[in-house]
Amino acid sequence: MKIAVDAAQTAATELLQAAGLEAEMAQATARRLVEGDLLGHNSHGLRMLPVYLERLGDGRIAREGRIEVLADHGASFSWSTNRLPGAWAMERLLEEAMQRVKSHPVVTATLANCSHVGALQAYLEAPARRGLLATLMVTDPGVASVAPPGGIDPVTTSNPIAACIPTEGEPLLIDTSTSLVSNGAIANHAAAGRKLPGNWVVDNQGQPSDDPQALSAKPPGTIMPLGGEDFGYKGFAFGLLVEAYALALAGYGRELPRQRGAQGVFLQLIEPNAFGHGKQAFLASTSALVGQCHASRPAPGASIRLPGERALARKASQLRDGLDIADDVRTQLDAWAQRLGCPAFAHRADH
Amino acid sequence: MKIAVDAAQTAATELLQAAGLEAEMAQATARRLVEGDLLGHNSHGLRMLPVYLERLGDGRIAREGRIEVLADHGASFSWSTNRLPGAWAMERLLEEAMQRVKSHPVVTATLANCSHVGALQAYLEAPARRGLLATLMVTDPGVASVAPPGGIDPVTTSNPIAACIPTEGEPLLIDTSTSLVSNGAIANHAAAGRKLPGNWVVDNQGQPSDDPQALSAKPPGTIMPLGGEDFGYKGFAFGLLVEAYALALAGYGRELPRQRGAQGVFLQLIEPNAFGHGKQAFLASTSALVGQCHASRPAPGASIRLPGERALARKASQLRDGLDIADDVRTQLDAWAQRLGCPAFAHRADH
Repeated sequence: MKIAVDAAQTAATELLQAAGLEAEMAQATARRLVEGDLLGHNSHGLRMLPVYLERLGDGRIAREGRIEVLADHGASFSWSTNRLPGAWAMERLLEEAMQRVKSHPVVTATLANCSHVGALQAYLEAPARRGLLATLMVTDPGVASVAPPGGIDPVTTSNPIAACIPTEGEPLLIDTSTSLVSNGAIANHAAAGRKLPGNWVVDNQGQPSDDPQALSAKPPGTIMPLGGEDFGYKGFAFGLLVEAYALALAGYGRELPRQRGAQGVFLQLIEPNAFGHGKQAFLASTSALVGQCHASRPAPGASIRLPGERALARKASQLRDGLDIADDVRTQLDAWAQRLGCPAFAHRADH
Repeated sequence: MKIAVDAAQTAATELLQAAGLEAEMAQATARRLVEGDLLGHNSHGLRMLPVYLERLGDGRIAREGRIEVLADHGASFSWSTNRLPGAWAMERLLEEAMQRVKSHPVVTATLANCSHVGALQAYLEAPARRGLLATLMVTDPGVASVAPPGGIDPVTTSNPIAACIPTEGEPLLIDTSTSLVSNGAIANHAAAGRKLPGNWVVDNQGQPSDDPQALSAKPPGTIMPLGGEDFGYKGFAFGLLVEAYALALAGYGRELPRQRGAQGVFLQLIEPNAFGHGKQAFLASTSALVGQCHASRPAPGASIRLPGERALARKASQLRDGLDIADDVRTQLDAWAQRLGCPAFAHRADH
């Protein structure tokens, strides 16, 4: 079904409030889930809302509490959130960093122990539209699904790195895991009874495999780092970067007892105007780069698409035509609406 | 042959001075080439020295000039070097950043238009031993060998990202290209008359190929981004980051007319003590991560090696037993020694 974006935002906010979140936290969480869907990250959009509602119920997402300042040096600051809603904490972190970058060319911030923040790309457009470079790394020290190359036992997760690159036109919005694919993508193949298109996983005996069931075996297999069998050591190296920046630096890493559902975050904003020949030169350079990529002749049957282009197009069309919500997500949300005494999502779909 | 490290350093310095470099620049250049060899990056070690000597001769490496300050905001600064020796400029940039990081938790620096800086890993040990996180991105806007996924015409290069992660023990030293392999690795397969082990390149018609000759065809083919046929869009996204940080931000990017041999650099140092729960907690966290990686059971016939471990072991053994120099490199260097009136490398090999 399609539903107007505003209506989806309102419905999700009401469900979160009914589950005990205060208005500001509920709004921020709903806003970032809807933004995830708008950009096409459906696995990190409203599909996550039932998970959040469950976690609000059992205390894995905190409803009350304050952000604790672990360190503050002006151009850098570290917060800990004690499992408060991740999207709300991320919005506050980003807002604070956007304020500070007016007086510091580089602002660096970390967030420890916040609950799930959703799609990283959903935080990039605001800094990009302000002409800032932003880098965002996030991971969850309570989850392990990627083994070091040559290893059997998992240590890290798909450890994404996201970034925006402003240009004179639309910005590039990068959001890329450092493993071949996510746990969710493997689960989708398993549910459909399909083999994987390649040896994307390693089974629990250390053998490369195209069987998606390998990941749900006991003990579970692992997902290969980006680069796969031949070059996985490269992707794993980038994954280690995420561990160092988003977890160790934030003060919330794999030295802790493993407990699922809370994340560490590294966020950095850079004002290009303070570097090189200033902002106009920077934008001319990134725009030339984008132009050269699109001027590359396409291979037969292929086309060239740069990071974020499809996401921004999808956002534009959904803002116009309504948000796509999968039937199974709608069903789950309506069940929650009934349980929490809210109007069903279907009743909003007068679009 | 093996040669004592000091003797190699002296011999290389003398050659560079004979080619017209002043002592400080010659020493720095020799030091970083030798460090490249020590860490096992032979393609970026003394093998590059004949190239540098040639470039000093034809002016592609400047012998005189000054570093120009493009911007300076204390915690961030941008220099342009007008093709001065890359290793010398990098050492000065790193030294300046290491000074400034004593008063700023994050120091961010760019370098525009310096000549080839050599192996990135050769700059990482000093900050790592000081307990700093360092990130280094470098590329050359005069070279294009990687096409955007789906494209035929090259735009970027292998665009490496390097970083050090300090721990309570030996640091992790990451130095990883964002393409599958380097131009040099493909050339080695071509010279040996071997097919590539996989479809690592795209021919000049846009077809994935295992033929290393595809890269030297006219027009040349391209190297696949990290991730290859299925996931190259991820590696290319990281390559775009390098373009934005090391070129556009530095003020020396692909908007310029293409001219080979000069590079743009992004360097950032982070003092972990200023974040989260401070340095001891940071080091405990990175050390736990390394411990967990090594505790992962190895797959049959495999072993687990983290970034920099082999390089540091190689450095230790070469410091003890002498530097390995390939015969063809020695022959080239001796020809240069004769031409420039310096003692032959062979005469130094009394180790």
